[in-house]
Amino acid sequence: MPDRIHKNKTHTQDGPRSDEQAPGPGRLFLIPTPLGPHPENQVLPEHVIRTVHRLDTFFVERIRQANSFLRWINHPVPDFKCRFYELNKHTPGEDLLEMVSLLKNGSDGGIITEAGCPGVADPGSELVRLAHESGIDVVPLTGPSSILLALMASGMNGQAFAFHGYLPRPGRERTERIRFLENESAKRNLTQVFMETPYRNNDLLKELVRELADTTRLCVASDLTLPEEQIISCRVTDWRKRKVDLDKRPSIFLLLAEEAPTGSRNNKKPAHRRKRAGK
Amino acid sequence: MPDRIHKNKTHTQDGPRSDEQAPGPGRLFLIPTPLGPHPENQVLPEHVIRTVHRLDTFFVERIRQANSFLRWINHPVPDFKCRFYELNKHTPGEDLLEMVSLLKNGSDGGIITEAGCPGVADPGSELVRLAHESGIDVVPLTGPSSILLALMASGMNGQAFAFHGYLPRPGRERTERIRFLENESAKRNLTQVFMETPYRNNDLLKELVRELADTTRLCVASDLTLPEEQIISCRVTDWRKRKVDLDKRPSIFLLLAEEAPTGSRNNKKPAHRRKRAGK
Repeated sequence: MPDRIHKNKTHTQDGPRSDEQAPGPGRLFLIPTPLGPHPENQVLPEHVIRTVHRLDTFFVERIRQANSFLRWINHPVPDFKCRFYELNKHTPGEDLLEMVSLLKNGSDGGIITEAGCPGVADPGSELVRLAHESGIDVVPLTGPSSILLALMASGMNGQAFAFHGYLPRPGRERTERIRFLENESAKRNLTQVFMETPYRNNDLLKELVRELADTTRLCVASDLTLPEEQIISCRVTDWRKRKVDLDKRPSIFLLLAEEAPTGSRNNKKPAHRRKRAGK
Repeated sequence: MPDRIHKNKTHTQDGPRSDEQAPGPGRLFLIPTPLGPHPENQVLPEHVIRTVHRLDTFFVERIRQANSFLRWINHPVPDFKCRFYELNKHTPGEDLLEMVSLLKNGSDGGIITEAGCPGVADPGSELVRLAHESGIDVVPLTGPSSILLALMASGMNGQAFAFHGYLPRPGRERTERIRFLENESAKRNLTQVFMETPYRNNDLLKELVRELADTTRLCVASDLTLPEEQIISCRVTDWRKRKVDLDKRPSIFLLLAEEAPTGSRNNKKPAHRRKRAGK
């Protein structure tokens, strides 16, 4: 009979470890955080908050921000009694190994990033990978992800989608990437998801509206879960009639292109786009 | 000054409509549901439950299942006083238009699918698209998504990933798709995410372990958020030493291939794989 890997693992998503498990390795919890400064909690299940309350070891993108999050959920352990380890793309490998050995020696720990889900367009995946390699259980907790909320709300294809992170900086490379994403979307009926640094959002939107085909659908989801939440999803031809200010508003961009008519797939810039480009 | 589209929109994520908004169109809420039959709620924020309590019009994948969900969250309106409209891939266009006109006439409504997030590997996106076209506000609520939880917990690249839904049925086409996904993953450092009908999971796993390169990382996340949750993420070479039973366990599969060495990108079946294929 095939065995299950973690024979003694019970109640993974529940906080308390059963006696029979001790003194095994600790677990690595992946803790989602709010997407913005909403005073009330609208995004974290009570279970997640209770689980985090039982932890006192955190691997965090920014200590100050992690501290405000813990205060926001009324974490019962005072700041100075929690252990914080900085975890971002600059964290040296030896520090990561130290975190892993802490978990291996029996401490539970949690990853807290600046906003949203650890490991998804956010740091954390390197530590998660090392945890798996050391036989440490990884427990993802439910919470908000701007990428996922935007995809749900876009009305685009959620059976096939791709996330690309940040596009290249403004310039020829970005223009080419936008065209590539649109072509690939048309060929595969694929929803393309990407982001931009918030102060460059308006510039990206301008370029998208200029470069994309009239019939391509474009969705911009801004300030998700906040009172200012705004989700606009329509064809590029309708975007051209709108004036929308996205400056400094955290936003996710999604596009879905219509299947290219036969014979036009290699036509990098169809007539309607050439005409529009001067606008 | 560019205007914001929904000038009168306040407290989007809060339930109550302000008086100044009435009598505008209703809103379309996207309601996530648990990924499995956990008796306690570990995945829905209180805010989401309160919001759903205020709704009595639902667009649902299956009426019976939506009803048990509403009972599970102690919805205060008795079943027979709620309005249910079936929403799945067989729903005729005219029924969708009827749902839209209900919303246009001022009713708030919510989409409930069988498990997880509406519109993401689940029905709902067609109605969302029509809602946008009719100027109806779409409000995505936070909850569990097996795709997102699996991605967080995989330790793979969360800066670039693609979801492909179900792979083709077993056979040559599936094998080719697996090789294509692995090649593309290597070229673009892309995490590939896909699923299989649960009773075919073991068969897919066997093929993945046979076809993928030794160094490719494969993650299988099963029974997410349930007591039986199991997340295994390691190189294919280590999977070959394991025996894991995934039969009838809802699972998400993820792979991340190492960058192909120069010159080998067109080599569809490298030596190590040919050797392994007989195992």
